[in-house]
Amino acid sequence: MTDWGLLDPGATETAGTDDDAVLEAMVDVERALLRVWGSELDEFLDGQADALDDAALDRAALAAGVSRDAVPVVALVPALRAQLEAAGLPADRLHLGATSQDVLDTALMLVARDALRATRASLIAAGARLASLADAERQSPRIGRTIARHGEASTLGVLAAGWLDGVSSAIESVDALSFPVQFGGAVGTGTAADVAAGRPGAADDVRAGLAVRLGLTDPGRSWHVERTPVLAVASAAASVVAVLGRLAGDVTLLSREELGEVRLAGGGGSSAMPHKRNPVDAVAITAAAVESPALLQVVASAAIAGDERSAGRWHAEWASQRRLLRLARSASAAAARLADGLEFDRDRAAQILASADAANAPSHRDLLVATSDRIIDRAVARFTAVSEGGTRP
Amino acid sequence: MTDWGLLDPGATETAGTDDDAVLEAMVDVERALLRVWGSELDEFLDGQADALDDAALDRAALAAGVSRDAVPVVALVPALRAQLEAAGLPADRLHLGATSQDVLDTALMLVARDALRATRASLIAAGARLASLADAERQSPRIGRTIARHGEASTLGVLAAGWLDGVSSAIESVDALSFPVQFGGAVGTGTAADVAAGRPGAADDVRAGLAVRLGLTDPGRSWHVERTPVLAVASAAASVVAVLGRLAGDVTLLSREELGEVRLAGGGGSSAMPHKRNPVDAVAITAAAVESPALLQVVASAAIAGDERSAGRWHAEWASQRRLLRLARSASAAAARLADGLEFDRDRAAQILASADAANAPSHRDLLVATSDRIIDRAVARFTAVSEGGTRP
Amino acid sequence: MTDWGLLDPGATETAGTDDDAVLEAMVDVERALLRVWGSELDEFLDGQADALDDAALDRAALAAGVSRDAVPVVALVPALRAQLEAAGLPADRLHLGATSQDVLDTALMLVARDALRATRASLIAAGARLASLADAERQSPRIGRTIARHGEASTLGVLAAGWLDGVSSAIESVDALSFPVQFGGAVGTGTAADVAAGRPGAADDVRAGLAVRLGLTDPGRSWHVERTPVLAVASAAASVVAVLGRLAGDVTLLSREELGEVRLAGGGGSSAMPHKRNPVDAVAITAAAVESPALLQVVASAAIAGDERSAGRWHAEWASQRRLLRLARSASAAAARLADGLEFDRDRAAQILASADAANAPSHRDLLVATSDRIIDRAVARFTAVSEGGTRP
Amino acid sequence: MTDWGLLDPGATETAGTDDDAVLEAMVDVERALLRVWGSELDEFLDGQADALDDAALDRAALAAGVSRDAVPVVALVPALRAQLEAAGLPADRLHLGATSQDVLDTALMLVARDALRATRASLIAAGARLASLADAERQSPRIGRTIARHGEASTLGVLAAGWLDGVSSAIESVDALSFPVQFGGAVGTGTAADVAAGRPGAADDVRAGLAVRLGLTDPGRSWHVERTPVLAVASAAASVVAVLGRLAGDVTLLSREELGEVRLAGGGGSSAMPHKRNPVDAVAITAAAVESPALLQVVASAAIAGDERSAGRWHAEWASQRRLLRLARSASAAAARLADGLEFDRDRAAQILASADAANAPSHRDLLVATSDRIIDRAVARFTAVSEGGTRP
Repeated sequence: MTDWGLLDPGATETAGTDDDAVLEAMVDVERALLRVWGSELDEFLDGQADALDDAALDRAALAAGVSRDAVPVVALVPALRAQLEAAGLPADRLHLGATSQDVLDTALMLVARDALRATRASLIAAGARLASLADAERQSPRIGRTIARHGEASTLGVLAAGWLDGVSSAIESVDALSFPVQFGGAVGTGTAADVAAGRPGAADDVRAGLAVRLGLTDPGRSWHVERTPVLAVASAAASVVAVLGRLAGDVTLLSREELGEVRLAGGGGSSAMPHKRNPVDAVAITAAAVESPALLQVVASAAIAGDERSAGRWHAEWASQRRLLRLARSASAAAARLADGLEFDRDRAAQILASADAANAPSHRDLLVATSDRIIDRAVARFTAVSEGGTRP
Repeated sequence: MTDWGLLDPGATETAGTDDDAVLEAMVDVERALLRVWGSELDEFLDGQADALDDAALDRAALAAGVSRDAVPVVALVPALRAQLEAAGLPADRLHLGATSQDVLDTALMLVARDALRATRASLIAAGARLASLADAERQSPRIGRTIARHGEASTLGVLAAGWLDGVSSAIESVDALSFPVQFGGAVGTGTAADVAAGRPGAADDVRAGLAVRLGLTDPGRSWHVERTPVLAVASAAASVVAVLGRLAGDVTLLSREELGEVRLAGGGGSSAMPHKRNPVDAVAITAAAVESPALLQVVASAAIAGDERSAGRWHAEWASQRRLLRLARSASAAAARLADGLEFDRDRAAQILASADAANAPSHRDLLVATSDRIIDRAVARFTAVSEGGTRP
Repeated sequence: MTDWGLLDPGATETAGTDDDAVLEAMVDVERALLRVWGSELDEFLDGQADALDDAALDRAALAAGVSRDAVPVVALVPALRAQLEAAGLPADRLHLGATSQDVLDTALMLVARDALRATRASLIAAGARLASLADAERQSPRIGRTIARHGEASTLGVLAAGWLDGVSSAIESVDALSFPVQFGGAVGTGTAADVAAGRPGAADDVRAGLAVRLGLTDPGRSWHVERTPVLAVASAAASVVAVLGRLAGDVTLLSREELGEVRLAGGGGSSAMPHKRNPVDAVAITAAAVESPALLQVVASAAIAGDERSAGRWHAEWASQRRLLRLARSASAAAARLADGLEFDRDRAAQILASADAANAPSHRDLLVATSDRIIDRAVARFTAVSEGGTRP
Repeated sequence: MTDWGLLDPGATETAGTDDDAVLEAMVDVERALLRVWGSELDEFLDGQADALDDAALDRAALAAGVSRDAVPVVALVPALRAQLEAAGLPADRLHLGATSQDVLDTALMLVARDALRATRASLIAAGARLASLADAERQSPRIGRTIARHGEASTLGVLAAGWLDGVSSAIESVDALSFPVQFGGAVGTGTAADVAAGRPGAADDVRAGLAVRLGLTDPGRSWHVERTPVLAVASAAASVVAVLGRLAGDVTLLSREELGEVRLAGGGGSSAMPHKRNPVDAVAITAAAVESPALLQVVASAAIAGDERSAGRWHAEWASQRRLLRLARSASAAAARLADGLEFDRDRAAQILASADAANAPSHRDLLVATSDRIIDRAVARFTAVSEGGTRP
């Protein structure tokens, strides 16, 4: 099968998370493992590592392997071994001490790290634009709305600062993550690695070496069936989508013809009404936000695991976790585009405020402006501070 | 992007639900619409219908259209129009009176109908094998287990009959569905079709004609934002996966080395332990069963819709609904394989029963056998009756 | 503990679904079982049945029993036995042949039946009002909106008819349900009942007798771990909430000050803004609609069950299924109130339409009116037909 | 209504999270607000704070208020005002500058903080027992199981250490949380507080003062509709339940009669089989683990919020968030009991290992023992370090 993007408006950013990218990450893990064993065993295995070629692997055969084995690694290892043999290289060090889950868990952490780095960059871009909008609209009054009704006066700048706070929180969620390597062998004890090295503690050293080579953290343990690292990644990704979902929902509403406080650039077409411009980025983010909590739910359910490796829960995790990362990546890219093309209509906002019930009148205009300043300054300062952080390896 | 099956052990049966199949169904809808208009307008439009070629469409361009328009039909219609023009045929009747949602909703109903027909066939196959097992093991005693503890005596035949009842219920869920065509134009009123035909009621006739040509039901209305037909399909698909998930969970447990009442054929390999045979079909079904309830959740959330077409909820529905169908299809195929290779170990079951606490002794053996007969006869008769039904168009 | 409604604006209709009501239903099952055994055994057990008093049971002791046994029936049975003994009546026929799950599953089906009957009545009330509104606004033009933008002209009557179609679908979902009795004894074979009666088939007769006495259906089998009957109820309840969620979302939007096509009666207060009137019924329905899909998800996950009675999945089902029923009941009651106080503002709708982009102009006004008539007539006729059906026992 | 615990085996620890406790927390917030205003306004308002009496409030009236206003605070404020007036005290400072959401959000953060502190204490208790078990079983061999099949040799100590790692991760999740106060007035700007104090910045000072008095953090902003603080709490609670769900699932399996590597103390009764002892704590935790991911899903969906306060999403959050806290609290208490009564059967574990396929033989016994030591030492050291941390205010 190939799913090439026909039905996924909320998940259009697939670079780095598609099957080819995951496969490449799996081969990266096998490469790094060869190199780490090279040090451990005082053998030069970089040649073997270099000879592995993910691009040349037969996708259909790997997909058939997933059907047959319920895991992609069982078919991958002999395919890589065949590459080594074809190059006249010994293949016995390949996958040494590892089990399928070591390779796939670690590969998905690489995919997560990179997808969330790209997500972070898009969040920064979206936040920078929102900060600029907040700054520009410090004194632009509007009506605040609560429970779908006019409430009290606020400003357009405070509105943008509120979205910006969400973006800052999302970045903090991402920055709080660590992306640990997984290496434990068949039942998580690392015994096969110790046996291969002929000494206790070898598995720990291999794990640490993998972490360094792959740019992941060494968790000091195997998390085969202790899935909190995966759930933490899923929670952060879902937080990203949620804060962007709020932004998308607000701008979808505020850009309606009857409200008009917000204008959006561009927009997608309609097959029935050629004149129409739809708020495509907001729609895509909203679609992601409807779906994302359910994917988090799957990952949380899968975390129950069982045995030394679970019979189905782990397998349910892969596609859901990957899709959640893809949604975070896509939603943040869409948010950066959305923010870039977003403009406020000060006059319309002021007009609505003026038309609001007298009880909502901004009788304390000076205090509101001072408060608006304080809120915006704080939100911008927070975003600036958060931006200067960064994801851990 | 292409996702080609690397991470989906629970969703390996993709024929009929992949992007190519959905695209083909969309073009089938446009073809049928041309033919229906041919009758309505007394024009011969079959030539145009025949000239449409889904296989020749540029997938990358369509995927780019999804990114741009958040719906695949906006890019599809000009691409089809270009096919007509290239064939020297007039293209003005294409997509007449329709909106994107008419095409996509109807296409996904075609996909659902076919996926659930195939699912039904697999359920029949699995059920036939379970019925045979139940019949063969009428008098094979075993211990029933409740709350993970030995309870009272039962039989292997009753166990199989219980699984069979689940299969019968799943078939009933599928057979209760209808698959309605969607045709309502831009805002669900069908006005554009009436205008095109120059008479009121034309939209109703087009909708009815589409239903006949496509083998769907005519709902007598537009369900653009009244999503209960979609939610009903999702509920049935989730029911299928749930009853198979129970079967998979039971056989996973009962085939463990320590229990051994059940033996499974075949089994997938392990990258770390070459001697090991994993219960791959049960794993795949379990993975589907962990994921499926969350997808049902998305479809139920998306059913809230809004306006005359929703800004994001509808878009979130497509991939989730399609995946739910794929899981039902894959899980039922896996269940048929699983049932086919499933064998009971009567001696082991009797041995466990004998070892059970004296309080669990089958002191009323004759009554149990008579009851076992009644339960099995009823379950088999129910399955036979259910099997003879069939899905509606 | 007592939760008395502080945090549940979406679940305020608790009559019939609170713990007292469930307890009463459980005792009703035990009463009916005594009476059925009276016939079977040619003993007069109506006295015992009459002597059971659910109101007098010690709630704290039962709650402690749930903590101790993870099921409420284990503590209930001796408490009821004590009532019989206190009345000088023999207690040995109480709970005869039954297990905890028989009592609780059957009691929750009674609760479901009654909650959905009340839900149906509220849906009828809401639908009647919507039908009346649709009829009154056949020729009131408005702009249809798609993807949060002005689309094409429609009518207020078509809008109401669309909501009405949702209500009709919800009623159909409820009417398609059956509410089966559960009776299977410890491991679902009914052996204990057969032993008590001294003949095979007694369990079947007891189950059939219970169904008649309790007004439930006889499923002809035990569904201890074949949970599709429960999942079907949950799906119907979730469908009810979903269609009402759409209604609530639409009126929340359309009653905003800037749109104003809809006016809502009454409304709740605000602690900060005394002048404000919030759309409380719409808020309550929306809250229910956000929560309801997740509860359906729990019931679908619980349906995996396992063994002859599951160790935890069944237990997770009770509160979620009950809450889903409560949400359906509460949302439908809120919808009836909402519809009752809902009014359209024809002038405002016409004004917005007039202001819409020229491309949206109702250039085909006559066809639109004719189409509007057809749509409304069909929706009203469908509702009338559906209304005249009714829930099965 | 009253729900008093009939249907909630997975949620039996309700102290601190029931409606009375939430109400008390709401009144605590109003008390603290009075005291903070006392400082700000140089008035002595401690008398008013002391006069508020949550125990004396009319629950039925408050529940009716929830039905009427969709929020409990609108009815609460006049009820508290009446208490002040009855005591001859001025009431005009009550709720000054606050909106309903300030009170309820802050109260639920107090409830969360306390529930998770209690959860943490139970996790420490469970972890201490698991650490002790791991230490005692360093050299007790067993078969590790993967994909429901025998894998390779491991030890009982490694098994316990793996559960312990989950507990440590859960504690870390809790300890990473902050519990911020919410104070923003009607639309999040704090204008009403500034007006009351006659100066800009007063709202900030009130928020900071509330944080100090209530033992919460000052977030430096209003998070009315920026719900990541709530989602973070929900994610941590769900992580707690997930790791305990794994423990419960493992011991449920391993304590089955056929496996017998684990023995559990106590156990609940059965209404049909008096001799039977059910694994009640494991069942309760499993029930919580089936439900918990769906509640997280609701909180993540609710985080989309909207406007300056959302019309329904916020309202859906309360009960789900509270229930998630209750499940975490209940599951951790059950886990402490479960761990306390958990014993390993070394002989049975050794016997199963011996019976395992020759390919699984512990041919490298010495390395395994050394590895087991390393894994256990690290897990215990990690737990010790984590234990010595603590929740933030």
